[in-house]
Amino acid sequence: MIKVGIVGYGNLGRGAALAVKRSDDMECVGIFTRRDPEKISPETGDKTYPVSELKNFKGKIDVLLLCGGSATDLPETSAGYLKDFNTVDTFDTHAKIPEYLKKLDATAKENGTLGAISIGWDPGVFSLSRLLFGSVLPNGKDYTFWGKGVSQGHSDAIRRIKGVKDAVQFTVPIEDAVNSVRRGENPELSAAQKHLRECFVVAEDNADKTEIEKAIKEMPNYFADYNVTVTFVSEEELREKRGKLPHGGFVIRSGETTESTSMLLELSLKLDSNPEFTGSVLAAYARAVAKMAKEGKTGAITAFDIPFKYLSPLSYEEQIKTLL
Amino acid sequence: MIKVGIVGYGNLGRGAALAVKRSDDMECVGIFTRRDPEKISPETGDKTYPVSELKNFKGKIDVLLLCGGSATDLPETSAGYLKDFNTVDTFDTHAKIPEYLKKLDATAKENGTLGAISIGWDPGVFSLSRLLFGSVLPNGKDYTFWGKGVSQGHSDAIRRIKGVKDAVQFTVPIEDAVNSVRRGENPELSAAQKHLRECFVVAEDNADKTEIEKAIKEMPNYFADYNVTVTFVSEEELREKRGKLPHGGFVIRSGETTESTSMLLELSLKLDSNPEFTGSVLAAYARAVAKMAKEGKTGAITAFDIPFKYLSPLSYEEQIKTLL
Repeated sequence: MIKVGIVGYGNLGRGAALAVKRSDDMECVGIFTRRDPEKISPETGDKTYPVSELKNFKGKIDVLLLCGGSATDLPETSAGYLKDFNTVDTFDTHAKIPEYLKKLDATAKENGTLGAISIGWDPGVFSLSRLLFGSVLPNGKDYTFWGKGVSQGHSDAIRRIKGVKDAVQFTVPIEDAVNSVRRGENPELSAAQKHLRECFVVAEDNADKTEIEKAIKEMPNYFADYNVTVTFVSEEELREKRGKLPHGGFVIRSGETTESTSMLLELSLKLDSNPEFTGSVLAAYARAVAKMAKEGKTGAITAFDIPFKYLSPLSYEEQIKTLL
Repeated sequence: MIKVGIVGYGNLGRGAALAVKRSDDMECVGIFTRRDPEKISPETGDKTYPVSELKNFKGKIDVLLLCGGSATDLPETSAGYLKDFNTVDTFDTHAKIPEYLKKLDATAKENGTLGAISIGWDPGVFSLSRLLFGSVLPNGKDYTFWGKGVSQGHSDAIRRIKGVKDAVQFTVPIEDAVNSVRRGENPELSAAQKHLRECFVVAEDNADKTEIEKAIKEMPNYFADYNVTVTFVSEEELREKRGKLPHGGFVIRSGETTESTSMLLELSLKLDSNPEFTGSVLAAYARAVAKMAKEGKTGAITAFDIPFKYLSPLSYEEQIKTLL
């Protein structure tokens, strides 16, 4: 049995716990939280501990799944965890990945541990597709579309506007753009030509809805350059829209092997729940990290370093027989 | 520069040569053939040699791409090549892969070489998808659909019928079945419920077309259990249908992370030319084998053993920066 610890119990931590629960070759040793552990009752029945008790689990956990956020949590804490444990995280602040990887690699090598970073579906499964597709079809062009799904960052940005009680933002791929790519037309597409942004907002009583809509549509970086729709809804309607945080998207590579010989490679994901799927990917990579660490591998690695054979609970022989 | 040799110059050998030509970090040292090398004029301008001269190239080739068939050619010859060279092949006789892998692994380890077997798109890219999808979504069901595309084996089977001058068989995924899978209905599907077989036949003058059609439709294993259409066409029409041997298909995994939380993962390929794409995949794996061999790896391996970072001509830093 692979012994897993989970740090953080937000949406992602919950998804990871559910995935570990469903994996016959893994057990969850504990969920470690900065909140009051007494106040958390995981539906998996896993034990909860204050994160300060983690130090007592050194040697008793094969892999730690770091389920904190990329903005401040992971950069501040993951090197610390990596001193005592093998880890898997979902770090996705793209511009900072090289620096983060370097720092964790040094820590891991000093301490004889192994950490897999930027695991999930993007970065993660989508990155793998981009790398594979580009390698097997070098003459071509990549497109990544996200959605239809909830963007947490954009939803947060709306919630910070005065008069907004709650909000959810859906990123929606623009169908004409997707179809043009699928037809192999290799269009040049700006970010705004690829996605539109649908906002659902619960306004506070007496809030000025016209002002809120204006504040959203003029917000730089987040919305100003996009086609944006704003719809005011009730709290109940919002809850329904938000659901289990659905998401997904496509990676499409369109190219040619010789002139006029076209190829189209596409990966698509339709996810009812982004955090449950991401948690499930983390669990598979926890398995890989546990196995690779056992073989003596140390340092910080990404999905690009990990042979797929390590991801599966099946033996290599079974994989060859049933999946190759 | 990675020095590549190509053994065999059928459709696949030609596809591999084209792919190597288009790879800036590779050069083709030679194409080795059992035919008269004088009679082969590769459009890539590569030199051709009788296969018997290969022995003079030991130490001058980093990877040999074995472009022979799986029925008799590869099982008889690949262990011999692996004594002197690192190799990549497309061995796809599924039931015999474990035995083939074991035999080549022993040879490679004895001789300090590295051989990647069963590379291409199925086995190959599709196998990787099945393994990845099953690992990140363990509670689910896999479906592989092939086509629309030319099946060489079935085309050959038709050509062996008396009165048939030429023929091509298209394997076609049945749309209703694909749509049911994409809707997450997890249907139980027999082979015949997944694919139909469209046959285009050029009959010899005075041949009995009714007899030919009957012989096709009643042929055990190949056609008897399937929905089959037979259309008689002219040689020119057949040439056009056959084109550059188009193919493709889908790997779909439909499952759930928790009850009523569904996920759908899909890889799809649309290939104008099966051999050109397969050749392009071989070239990417030649790169991986060359790099892994340089790092000291020996033995026989499959796509499941190869981290994606080795497939790309980009440096690891570039991969992280642009693809992760």
